Amino acid sequence: MALSIVRRATRCRLRRGIRPLTTDPPRGVQNPTPRVFSGIQPTGIPHLGNYLGALQSWVSLQEEFSSVLYSIVDLHSITVPQNPDALRDSVLDMTACLLACGVNPAKSCLFQQSQVPEHAQLGWILSCLTSLPRLRHLPQWKMKSESQKNEGSVGLFTYPVLQAADILLYLSTHVPVGDDQAQHLQLTQDLARIFNYQYGEFFPIPRALMGSSKKIRSLRDPLVKMSKSDPHTLATVRLTDTPDEIVMKFRKAVTDFTSEVTYDPEKRPGVSNMVAIHSAVTGLSPEEVVKQSRGLETAQYKHVVAEAVITKLTPIREEVHRLRGDKGFLREVLTRGTHRARELAAPVYDKVCRIIGLR
Amino acid sequence: MALSIVRRATRCRLRRGIRPLTTDPPRGVQNPTPRVFSGIQPTGIPHLGNYLGALQSWVSLQEEFSSVLYSIVDLHSITVPQNPDALRDSVLDMTACLLACGVNPAKSCLFQQSQVPEHAQLGWILSCLTSLPRLRHLPQWKMKSESQKNEGSVGLFTYPVLQAADILLYLSTHVPVGDDQAQHLQLTQDLARIFNYQYGEFFPIPRALMGSSKKIRSLRDPLVKMSKSDPHTLATVRLTDTPDEIVMKFRKAVTDFTSEVTYDPEKRPGVSNMVAIHSAVTGLSPEEVVKQSRGLETAQYKHVVAEAVITKLTPIREEVHRLRGDKGFLREVLTRGTHRARELAAPVYDKVCRIIGLR
Repeated sequence: MALSIVRRATRCRLRRGIRPLTTDPPRGVQNPTPRVFSGIQPTGIPHLGNYLGALQSWVSLQEEFSSVLYSIVDLHSITVPQNPDALRDSVLDMTACLLACGVNPAKSCLFQQSQVPEHAQLGWILSCLTSLPRLRHLPQWKMKSESQKNEGSVGLFTYPVLQAADILLYLSTHVPVGDDQAQHLQLTQDLARIFNYQYGEFFPIPRALMGSSKKIRSLRDPLVKMSKSDPHTLATVRLTDTPDEIVMKFRKAVTDFTSEVTYDPEKRPGVSNMVAIHSAVTGLSPEEVVKQSRGLETAQYKHVVAEAVITKLTPIREEVHRLRGDKGFLREVLTRGTHRARELAAPVYDKVCRIIGLR
Repeated sequence: MALSIVRRATRCRLRRGIRPLTTDPPRGVQNPTPRVFSGIQPTGIPHLGNYLGALQSWVSLQEEFSSVLYSIVDLHSITVPQNPDALRDSVLDMTACLLACGVNPAKSCLFQQSQVPEHAQLGWILSCLTSLPRLRHLPQWKMKSESQKNEGSVGLFTYPVLQAADILLYLSTHVPVGDDQAQHLQLTQDLARIFNYQYGEFFPIPRALMGSSKKIRSLRDPLVKMSKSDPHTLATVRLTDTPDEIVMKFRKAVTDFTSEVTYDPEKRPGVSNMVAIHSAVTGLSPEEVVKQSRGLETAQYKHVVAEAVITKLTPIREEVHRLRGDKGFLREVLTRGTHRARELAAPVYDKVCRIIGLR
């Protein structure tokens, strides 16, 4: 796999008439300092699927790695139209949510991407190393451009290159990814290899940290992922939903006509989604959850799951509300994070400039 | 013309579902401070065509405008492969040449583009306002991508957007352009209008300053422009050519078999190119030049032109050599210019961020 990418990078490089400065095969930097990077777009309050799928693992990664960066990637969110006031609020809301979920600024560097100039700067340099056909063939672009009737912005087209810059700028070694992000990490890995091949080893080749968490599905259609943009308001549980809202959404959750709790995602996606959520918020296995719920009717079980979700989310919701009332503190957290991120980014970017001849 | 662009911008905006924050038609900022911006790639020593076509007018613009910025646009040069050491040298060589031609750092801000982070940053923001089809239809891309067998880099594809950022970042009002750059200035103008329409008036709509200077053609093929990349070494006179080299290149210049000096670019492109060069370096009109040369055979006339070019270029060549020997001074000039450019760019970029919601 790795070798085929190297060969592809080599062919690509040769087609562009670039001679390698070294004849050694690219291997990435030997034994780099482990560092985690991940980003999240500031697009309103995260939902339960975001929390269980990504944010919960962000919290545990803080304990596993000594260097962790989490970025609120506002430069990515402007690839589609944004209302300026809403964008400003969303950055602070997302900060409040991350802190409330357990992201600890003393353990991880939490910052706003646009405030670190080196992201856009390295993005430009990497765009000069990316061949246009390579980008055009990324499946995400095909999907997104279709939704915009093939009239998406240039930024929407090139954002995977900026994403590569986000990661490589900190010499990151590990990137927590969802399944749908795997292709983008491949582009990042390719760009690291192309750079290393052309200029000598510099960037570590970042590895994907695949989450072990369950996929949480829509409460209205258990065949699709829970999504912030779901037009059905009852489909998605947001971290700030009140207990009443949560009870109501679970009461109306789509299941089936068998009134028994079993875990069979293929044949009974609706009730299995309830079990998956129950399992994820309690930390019990699906089998344990099913065992505990023996004898309950589906309607009763939905209420049990709702209660478990409320128990999990109540402290988060209360903390989000408290933090949203203290915008000065949120701004201060971001300012400190941005300062730290720049301290890390500046020497790496300076080195890149010296390597390629801009300094 | 202007209105049709506004309508196009409006349609584009509406297709993307963006509501204008104002219902007034975009007019650009009223009575902005006049400011000239231009850039040149650091790709070796400029030739006579560059000097007569662009650099000479750069010098006179310093006297006509109170605010003038000239940028060595190294971020554009890396859209095609560059050798790092050669690129570093080229930036200093170009600085030496510009100073030797009369660019005066006391009158104009001379700086290295990559050292002002806001170019790449504003470039990203503008890329989010540029529709992909708009960029794909620029004739320069079609031409350049064909020369790279449609495998050009993403940077080569998106560089007109960075060019727009270069210009708009300083709220520039005037841009000296060659004929082949007119399309790119249109993209810059469109992006200024789109931004103003969406967020309210902010960017002046920059105007093209079309040079009055004669087009200088290849000495080996008077049907094509003099070009740095001409494979025939005798086709191009560089600013640092010695008098012997200049005499030799003009002696071998392609003319025709009529041994008389006339100015008729259509029927006698070769000898007319001699007259155009003679006219440009002496400041006389082609008619005066022809009158003065009455009775000379073409071979004799070529020598006269060579001598006039030598007279013009000798002080420049000597100054380039002197300056290339003082790299510390050249770096200091660029550092001071970059410092000044950042002072101008930072508040504009900050305002842009506040307008679109990144701050």
